[in-house]
Amino acid sequence: MKPLESVFNARCVAVVGASANPEKTGHIILKNIIEGGFAGRIYPVNPKAEEILGLPCHASLSAIDGPVDVVVIVVPSKFVPDVMEEAGGKQVSGAVVISGGFGETGNEELERRIVAIAERYGTRIIGPNCQGFNYTPNRLCASWPLVTKSGPIAVISQSGTVGAAIEMWAEQAGIGISGFVALGNAADVNETDLIDLFKEDPNTRVISLYIEGVQDGRRFMESVRSAREKKPVVVLKPGTTQKGARAIQSHTRSIAGRDEIFEAVTRQLGIVRARTITELFDYSLALGFMDKPKGNRLLIVTSSGGSGIIATDAAEQNGIRVVDLPGQLAAELKQALPPQCVVANPLDLTGDAKAERYRVAADIAVQYDAVDSILLIFGDPIPGACEVVNDLKEKTDKRIVVAYLGGGQTEEQEKLKLHRSGTPVFPTPERAVAALRVLLS
Amino acid sequence: MKPLESVFNARCVAVVGASANPEKTGHIILKNIIEGGFAGRIYPVNPKAEEILGLPCHASLSAIDGPVDVVVIVVPSKFVPDVMEEAGGKQVSGAVVISGGFGETGNEELERRIVAIAERYGTRIIGPNCQGFNYTPNRLCASWPLVTKSGPIAVISQSGTVGAAIEMWAEQAGIGISGFVALGNAADVNETDLIDLFKEDPNTRVISLYIEGVQDGRRFMESVRSAREKKPVVVLKPGTTQKGARAIQSHTRSIAGRDEIFEAVTRQLGIVRARTITELFDYSLALGFMDKPKGNRLLIVTSSGGSGIIATDAAEQNGIRVVDLPGQLAAELKQALPPQCVVANPLDLTGDAKAERYRVAADIAVQYDAVDSILLIFGDPIPGACEVVNDLKEKTDKRIVVAYLGGGQTEEQEKLKLHRSGTPVFPTPERAVAALRVLLS
Repeated sequence: MKPLESVFNARCVAVVGASANPEKTGHIILKNIIEGGFAGRIYPVNPKAEEILGLPCHASLSAIDGPVDVVVIVVPSKFVPDVMEEAGGKQVSGAVVISGGFGETGNEELERRIVAIAERYGTRIIGPNCQGFNYTPNRLCASWPLVTKSGPIAVISQSGTVGAAIEMWAEQAGIGISGFVALGNAADVNETDLIDLFKEDPNTRVISLYIEGVQDGRRFMESVRSAREKKPVVVLKPGTTQKGARAIQSHTRSIAGRDEIFEAVTRQLGIVRARTITELFDYSLALGFMDKPKGNRLLIVTSSGGSGIIATDAAEQNGIRVVDLPGQLAAELKQALPPQCVVANPLDLTGDAKAERYRVAADIAVQYDAVDSILLIFGDPIPGACEVVNDLKEKTDKRIVVAYLGGGQTEEQEKLKLHRSGTPVFPTPERAVAALRVLLS
Repeated sequence: MKPLESVFNARCVAVVGASANPEKTGHIILKNIIEGGFAGRIYPVNPKAEEILGLPCHASLSAIDGPVDVVVIVVPSKFVPDVMEEAGGKQVSGAVVISGGFGETGNEELERRIVAIAERYGTRIIGPNCQGFNYTPNRLCASWPLVTKSGPIAVISQSGTVGAAIEMWAEQAGIGISGFVALGNAADVNETDLIDLFKEDPNTRVISLYIEGVQDGRRFMESVRSAREKKPVVVLKPGTTQKGARAIQSHTRSIAGRDEIFEAVTRQLGIVRARTITELFDYSLALGFMDKPKGNRLLIVTSSGGSGIIATDAAEQNGIRVVDLPGQLAAELKQALPPQCVVANPLDLTGDAKAERYRVAADIAVQYDAVDSILLIFGDPIPGACEVVNDLKEKTDKRIVVAYLGGGQTEEQEKLKLHRSGTPVFPTPERAVAALRVLLS
């Protein structure tokens, strides 16, 4: 079999079933590959068109003059075996079969045929019946929607939509992803192959999984165990209710399995389990950007009294200690801060606090052993928040967790700057605390 | 006392402590009143400036020629009593005291003084030590950040930041708010006065509260009981942990009270209790836009198999029944939909579904009694989603709940259109289901 790396690092990509109709998937994917900035060769294949999106069309894969590394296939399922044969003949490394109409609709026979062809030539298959893949280090978005920002998260998903949602949120926040692969029917490439791949990928700092079931439990456990030596793994696996488990069988024909067993496996392997799509995103951010704090002692610093209280409740409920300030720290803070500040934990800098007051307070606090992490909640339009955080991170090995809310356009700007400089920003105190809990787990 | 309505419907507003320095609160508020589109008269007051933001400055409140309905006060606390005297002399209806340095810093005496002056003249006080108020029907954003979009939610908050966060999310989503009031120290106007106000406000469909404690339990219960006859009330009240409760005393000097008691009161009054800021927003959306479904039987319709499973788990865990499809409904759907669709509940329209397929499926489903609500999860870039939802809502009295994710720019456009036409869109299946649970409660 061709190495999976050569699929992700392809230099020449063909789209079989490329379309001039902007509503067709064969158009959208071609457009995303072009607009994503892929620097290699792009070949639309469509016997009925002269050119699409400014690129000359080819009548077939075989008609392309020169090598092809990856072929994205968007033609009806019955034509896929012929395309696979051509792909094999051209020594294509990977076929990304977007088309549905295979095992998921009862056409197991057709699915077995394309797998057999692929095996004969050593071609890897992503899919069929999938939303493609995206690998930002190679600027290759053979999927939708268009996501181009590079970041630390690799998303492996049995649901195109769940993966795309994570991609989109990461893109909008200016965080980005390293890769995204929609498994589809996983006729060849499955979750384990991709864990093995992203484990070695230097662009990936965290592996995020949406899976409904596991094809080979033993191999999955081996892969994850080995991956966990290098990077964190987060998983969202539904099917915790009877009806959910039944729906899984209709969707990907996976066996959901008993949830207690999967839960035990995740604990044993040190996988972080997300309970919602939002958690999958938040925990990926936290683990993709931050290391484990030394302990569970937290100082909350904020201009928003209410947010500080909410964070306190959330922390205490999650086993994170909102420690009492040591006398000397309290005394130093009292001396340095204006009198309206409430020197306690949460440390309330009050509503007129600018970035500078956060800097003063945090600079003092990081010098004390009594605290392992500092949660900075910016609760107003506070310009300069990003610089305060970045300067602070240079000075300390304590964890600096950031939440920003209620800050209008300033918040948007500061959040983008913070994300670009590698600090995740959570939109509420509760989500920031939940992320910290996961770092501690 | 002057009626509170005349504060919110002010025609002439003065800002005492208006500043030319863009970083000062006295600048930001003046700017927001101007840029928010307030159609009445705006008077900056600052003895040292000729004009600010293009408006002529006045040396004092008394120097203004003509009536003033509302004065926003941003000068240091020690000058506030004099301003209050002038305000009284000018028969001002309301003084919005942004300035801190009163009860919250131990200056109870100063706070009592301004209350006494206000009582003498009948002036209402919002604050002191607060983030002002915003009333979109009057385009009067005497607060920050600038929020102008009119919508059904009235936010009453003991935390400026929590209120501002709700405002901002509502603004960004194109949903908007009716009003926002930051209580600050609530020396005069408190949560109960505002519940009484927004209860009668025709622009408000839901009252959202962030409170840390209640000043007068009996009056609060009476107000809420009366408000509940007209509209829903959602509340976020932290202080559920010991340390959280202690932090509340430092922040607003409220007594958090025993949480079990507050919980019992909310149940008795039919208040929906949010557990996080996100829930406060989501539940306000749901209750501000949607009525209670007839029962708890749900049909899930989606192009995203994974999202359907996640929604199924969430519903079943929340006591919402993902009902088995009646035989006749299943038969009708099978006939009308392409063969790859999984006709079950969740109804999986599969990844190539366009808006039209949602329409076909939903049009059939609404004719069956077996279902009380339909959750439409758009899990792809699906143009036309908004029209399908709106047409459907005209045809049925079932609840139509919408989630949209993984849809790139199309999602953003459709979401905005849906929000403008009065349908809330939730960003994940889990949040949509939680909102439905609240409608049912």
